[in-house]
Amino acid sequence: MKDQFYKYIERLQDRITSTIEELDGAAKFNEDIWKRDEGGGGKTRVIENGAVFEKGGVNISAVYGKLPEALRRQFKVDEGDFFACGLSLVLHPKNPFIPTVHANWRYFEMYNSQGEIVTQWFGGGQDLSPYYLFNEDAIHFHTVCKKVCDNYQEEFYPIFKKNCDDYFWNTHRNEARGIGGLFFDYLKETDMFTMQDRFDFVTAVGNSFLESYVPIVEKRKNMSYEKSHKDWQEIRRGRYVEFNLVHDRGTLFGLKTNGRIESILMSLPPSVQWKYNYSPEKDSEEQKLIEILTNPKEWV
Amino acid sequence: MKDQFYKYIERLQDRITSTIEELDGAAKFNEDIWKRDEGGGGKTRVIENGAVFEKGGVNISAVYGKLPEALRRQFKVDEGDFFACGLSLVLHPKNPFIPTVHANWRYFEMYNSQGEIVTQWFGGGQDLSPYYLFNEDAIHFHTVCKKVCDNYQEEFYPIFKKNCDDYFWNTHRNEARGIGGLFFDYLKETDMFTMQDRFDFVTAVGNSFLESYVPIVEKRKNMSYEKSHKDWQEIRRGRYVEFNLVHDRGTLFGLKTNGRIESILMSLPPSVQWKYNYSPEKDSEEQKLIEILTNPKEWV
Repeated sequence: MKDQFYKYIERLQDRITSTIEELDGAAKFNEDIWKRDEGGGGKTRVIENGAVFEKGGVNISAVYGKLPEALRRQFKVDEGDFFACGLSLVLHPKNPFIPTVHANWRYFEMYNSQGEIVTQWFGGGQDLSPYYLFNEDAIHFHTVCKKVCDNYQEEFYPIFKKNCDDYFWNTHRNEARGIGGLFFDYLKETDMFTMQDRFDFVTAVGNSFLESYVPIVEKRKNMSYEKSHKDWQEIRRGRYVEFNLVHDRGTLFGLKTNGRIESILMSLPPSVQWKYNYSPEKDSEEQKLIEILTNPKEWV
Repeated sequence: MKDQFYKYIERLQDRITSTIEELDGAAKFNEDIWKRDEGGGGKTRVIENGAVFEKGGVNISAVYGKLPEALRRQFKVDEGDFFACGLSLVLHPKNPFIPTVHANWRYFEMYNSQGEIVTQWFGGGQDLSPYYLFNEDAIHFHTVCKKVCDNYQEEFYPIFKKNCDDYFWNTHRNEARGIGGLFFDYLKETDMFTMQDRFDFVTAVGNSFLESYVPIVEKRKNMSYEKSHKDWQEIRRGRYVEFNLVHDRGTLFGLKTNGRIESILMSLPPSVQWKYNYSPEKDSEEQKLIEILTNPKEWV
């Protein structure tokens, strides 16, 4: 399973980066291959200063070895070995009418002292953070998310959509990071699903990513904007930073377990503003976004 | 003691904000008075878009009531009341040759069910985060810090200077946030010191703040700079954000205990950049700063 999934994310990384490069038309991804001292490593691909994408990363990694202290505590085991691999991506567009997107699909295995698999699961999801809200974009993104879920199980979309709203809740701001999408974790073998079923589902979600996002970029990338739109984008990017550094479990886990810092923090936006106590004008387009972020809604 | 210290920080806030306004020459502080539902409140004063200061806050607060859950856990007590007051300031200058400065002086009391003081202490300090290193500025700042400490106890400066280097260590970057200063906490009554001695020391440190920082601002504020200097400042401000949101105990405590978010996050810089895997050129001025931040040194 681990080889099957790693091969999948390798191919998916190629597919996503080549599509994003085409869409950008100007910048190319730079690749950094890194090794982890304790076992494994990754391929980080970052694009900067593009025509469409101001900054973005599409990274894969596969790491293994002794369970780090933090994971031992989390899983309440004394010792053990693990394997984890996944693809993580964040794309920060230049044009404030294009939403930022984040996605991650991952697989985890834990072993006993005989090297046998004790437990294994998939996790991941994808979510959208617009700066200006176009209902049709939100509906398109969620429709693709729902369609891929409905092919497997009717309950998946409502559950994973709610998980996503809950997970990306910026508690100290009392608002969502974005307009959500899908979030799932600990997809294990059950009476109903084999690990192969789980693999089929997670890879179907991964395969749907470009379809969920690229049409939105194409529709918005040539819209003209003013400095005030860019300022608002940079202020909202501040909330993105706050979520990632204060609340995001993956980011904090990476920072506290000696992960490759630059691969983890590629998620941070290229330019950000913090203004004191800023709030948009009543009935403005900016205020409309805030209303949706404070009251997440059903899009499909 | 609590009234005596609160009156002190009220006067100190006035003195610091009026001096900073004079130094800036263009912008004025705006004051927000806020109340805490559970007891107490504060006076937040923020300056933005000045001629010298791009953003800064000089805030005081006094809060009291039942010990919040997080403090009960930290102090390992089942219940109790508390009182806490303090002044916190962060100043982010526009000119990248002027360092950012942070300071905080605070007082804490805890009571038993009869309302008697069980324990009380002072804490605080001040530290400097330059973007370009001028040895004479670092020496000046630390000389003022040492002088005020030496008036009380010879051991204070070396201990509180090391505390500061340790506290403001950005572990995930393996570098200091800045070039340090003083950091002290839990200054309680001992055989050697009464609470009045502690008060005298902490207020002497507070009184020394303007002397430690203002001459540096005056020396640097008219130096001309290029866009590349500003870019470097904004990249380093990113590290400042990372420290405050990932590691700073005060910030995280505030965010997780329903503090006044905008007063806490006034510490975040006005404009920030994150570039992937950026490192300055060998032998550059930027690289010289990094060398000091990765190997904190004795300045006096």
